[in-house]
Amino acid sequence: MSRKRIGIMISGRGSNMAALIVACREGRLDAEVALVLSDVADAEGLERAENLDVPARAIVPKKYRTKLDGDDARAYAEAFREAGVEFICLAGFMRIVKAPLLEAFPGRILNIHPSLLPSFPGLEAQRQAWEHGVKFSGCTVHFVDASLDGGPIIAQRIVPVLDDDTAETLAERILTEEHELYAEAVGKVLSGRYRVMGRRVVRT
Amino acid sequence: MSRKRIGIMISGRGSNMAALIVACREGRLDAEVALVLSDVADAEGLERAENLDVPARAIVPKKYRTKLDGDDARAYAEAFREAGVEFICLAGFMRIVKAPLLEAFPGRILNIHPSLLPSFPGLEAQRQAWEHGVKFSGCTVHFVDASLDGGPIIAQRIVPVLDDDTAETLAERILTEEHELYAEAVGKVLSGRYRVMGRRVVRT
Repeated sequence: MSRKRIGIMISGRGSNMAALIVACREGRLDAEVALVLSDVADAEGLERAENLDVPARAIVPKKYRTKLDGDDARAYAEAFREAGVEFICLAGFMRIVKAPLLEAFPGRILNIHPSLLPSFPGLEAQRQAWEHGVKFSGCTVHFVDASLDGGPIIAQRIVPVLDDDTAETLAERILTEEHELYAEAVGKVLSGRYRVMGRRVVRT
Repeated sequence: MSRKRIGIMISGRGSNMAALIVACREGRLDAEVALVLSDVADAEGLERAENLDVPARAIVPKKYRTKLDGDDARAYAEAFREAGVEFICLAGFMRIVKAPLLEAFPGRILNIHPSLLPSFPGLEAQRQAWEHGVKFSGCTVHFVDASLDGGPIIAQRIVPVLDDDTAETLAERILTEEHELYAEAVGKVLSGRYRVMGRRVVRT
């Protein structure tokens, strides 16, 4: 059986992207990153992907600023299909992904978010958590649907908030966990050994 | 120095009430439960408190069904003051506590909630968490303010959600943690060694 081909979408430095690429190389994840796409022309992660010998390019959406929709979304779907991609991982992609791409990869788009969802969806989740004064935060890998950070949860990991944390030190510790969690969660989905019951994603 | 006197408010069987009383008896909590009040005339917890030799009685509010306000709230404040109570712990009290009691015990009313707030405030928090498909839930002790389960967080504890959990088995495991967490959190507040910075409750 050939290794599953995954695509990654980024907007920034692509640290979760790099973690997934390395997990594949080291065999912790039985897959291959076939293509990285960025909506930002000069995203730092593009160079990083190239340095890791992964094809990477920007497709800058023409129409909207905060979502990926219409022809722009279809261009992403087309590029991933041409690269033989079966699963897509969002890794710091800063737009809401809309129907044309969701429908091209139904139940096969994943995202990682730096909080224990459903707490603190949206931007600056780590700062939101810190300001709210929770004693534990963490990160969440979930299926992407039309909602904001709201699809069924695949995996989560806990990070304690310390009394002397700043939003920044908390974000750093969460990021370390994200790098491990994402590979683990993608592996669970690629294995196909799960069922979605209502919103609950359980192993089979 | 004499032991701090705490009051407890219940509506039901009072399992967290009993846990606090026992924690005081066993010296894990340097305090004494001076009075238990219930808004429900035949709450199971009233008999339980008496069996544990703690004064307990119902004050059934006359005016509202879902909140404790006006003269009813003042009656609670008066009863607790007469009993020499300095801190109040809500333990399954099913009404929103309003200004007349909040203002009589400013920053000295605590509540325990069976979720990792701010996720799943309100009723049936354990079932909400289970249905949402989170991988971790838990419990939260927080200061009570005018919001629903929204005051500054004193302590939290994590409970993993298992693939074969039902809402009921999850609720049971959370309850076990609640019993330990509440005494711990009350101890932290009674010690006075904390500061509230914005919403963050940190040790000093």
